[in-house]
Amino acid sequence: MTEPLTAPAPKPGFKDQIDSLQAEVEQALDRILPSEKTAPTALHQAMRYSVMGGGKRIRPVLVYASGLAMGIPLSHMHGPACAVELIHAYSLIHDDLPAMDNDDLRRGRPTCHKAFDEATAILAGDALQALAFEAILEDPLCADDDRSRIEMMRLLARAAGHAGMAGGQAIDLAAVNQQLDLEQLERMHRMKTGALIEASVMLPLTGHLHVRQQERDSLGRYARHIGLAFQIQDDILDAIGDTETLGKTQGSDMAQNKPTYFSLLGLQGARNKLNEAHREAIQSLRDFDEKADLLRQIADYIVERTH
Amino acid sequence: MTEPLTAPAPKPGFKDQIDSLQAEVEQALDRILPSEKTAPTALHQAMRYSVMGGGKRIRPVLVYASGLAMGIPLSHMHGPACAVELIHAYSLIHDDLPAMDNDDLRRGRPTCHKAFDEATAILAGDALQALAFEAILEDPLCADDDRSRIEMMRLLARAAGHAGMAGGQAIDLAAVNQQLDLEQLERMHRMKTGALIEASVMLPLTGHLHVRQQERDSLGRYARHIGLAFQIQDDILDAIGDTETLGKTQGSDMAQNKPTYFSLLGLQGARNKLNEAHREAIQSLRDFDEKADLLRQIADYIVERTH
Repeated sequence: MTEPLTAPAPKPGFKDQIDSLQAEVEQALDRILPSEKTAPTALHQAMRYSVMGGGKRIRPVLVYASGLAMGIPLSHMHGPACAVELIHAYSLIHDDLPAMDNDDLRRGRPTCHKAFDEATAILAGDALQALAFEAILEDPLCADDDRSRIEMMRLLARAAGHAGMAGGQAIDLAAVNQQLDLEQLERMHRMKTGALIEASVMLPLTGHLHVRQQERDSLGRYARHIGLAFQIQDDILDAIGDTETLGKTQGSDMAQNKPTYFSLLGLQGARNKLNEAHREAIQSLRDFDEKADLLRQIADYIVERTH
Repeated sequence: MTEPLTAPAPKPGFKDQIDSLQAEVEQALDRILPSEKTAPTALHQAMRYSVMGGGKRIRPVLVYASGLAMGIPLSHMHGPACAVELIHAYSLIHDDLPAMDNDDLRRGRPTCHKAFDEATAILAGDALQALAFEAILEDPLCADDDRSRIEMMRLLARAAGHAGMAGGQAIDLAAVNQQLDLEQLERMHRMKTGALIEASVMLPLTGHLHVRQQERDSLGRYARHIGLAFQIQDDILDAIGDTETLGKTQGSDMAQNKPTYFSLLGLQGARNKLNEAHREAIQSLRDFDEKADLLRQIADYIVERTH
């Protein structure tokens, strides 16, 4: 890189940095996932197929970016980075099942139950949830002390369970053909996707004692707003994107008559709300220095992404 | 109780003691499960329906009995007692699904996906797994210190995941219409049911610092042998019991051509192996005083039970 440091590039090296963090978590996931060569091989293959099959790795990247904003070394965050991605991966496997969203395609490849079978997919999801907890338990560096590690476990369990992701998914299921108002829709998304995104931002902070409460509060606020932004953009893309770019069936939420920000607010209303959430997220970081630039760029990316 | 202490009753008050421990865990589970009145109500109903619907509570009773053998007060064991029952309950919900064992009946009542629907059943299982971890995290008394609590979490995660219950279940699935030898069958069961039974015995000990390594080893040996005995008796009952007594469809394993101790060893061979496992379990407790009598009686019960 011989370019002068003063070059006015708007996002210097953002893509490189994301690529590098994605590579970090891929390696960490590869280390923690059981080998395909040991029994039960089909289960282990299904776990690896689902976790290592690409994806944006937004949650682990958020773990790293949040920790980097507080000066935490990358090597102290692999456990929580893996944990949130494993929870996410398990939820996708179960969401795609015929009894749930019945999706055949995920990231441009057959879904887990199509590539394997339904029973293996159910068990792979179950085993990935347990492995997510192990990821934090088995990483010696991710927590400064035992108490912090316990707090991390608590955060993860709550984000995943009935008061978080699984609960939000249940509300989502019940919402098919139902009329939700904006408040109910936000509550559902805050549980279904927001809780794990928030946990991603908070986990590295929870593990390290030098992070002050005020910093935790600000980053928590950042997390809530990008979680909201992420979901609104998801709804917009589901409505107007195309199947090839998304890597999943376009319009699948609309087809199931699920309420979305798009259906409640229309395209312009959804875009306005998206921009407001983005502005709030950036605003939450106003007291942070340039170490939080990656978090800022992630907020930009969430708004601008096309898939 | 005015009977003289020398009265040679073979099992003084065993049933009362079990009833009382079952009542203890029912109350603890009731406290930890989310209310049916809060949203998402269907999810919470399904969780409660599956957990509070009876069952022998063998795993939580083992938690209590193991701790009592080491002088641990009952009030210090509710967290792990709930945790193992919640993991067990989630596994039953998922096992009963059409894609797995496809059972309509469990404990004489419709299975979770029959009483609710498949999607709710999948999510209820998922949420119960997360809640199991919370049960240990949220119980202030179940661990003497943070390090012990982390070790308890590790034990639970391993018992539930790919190297334990979920992995054993996957081997079991792959075994339909396959020929397993005795060693492979034992490995499968040691993962599928043995790991959680072993965790039940070990969790209270792991939480308390006064338990010596030798005592842990002996109780671990006890746990492995009653886990084996439990599975052999399960296979015998599945083969020769009747649907009414079992509360589930009799012969369902046989009908699916799954290898069992009964199919591999015949009735007498299975009974011999059962008695050997029982003898070993009792033998493991030889250095323990009368506080371990409940563990001894549980070993007897596992061999003698008819459902």
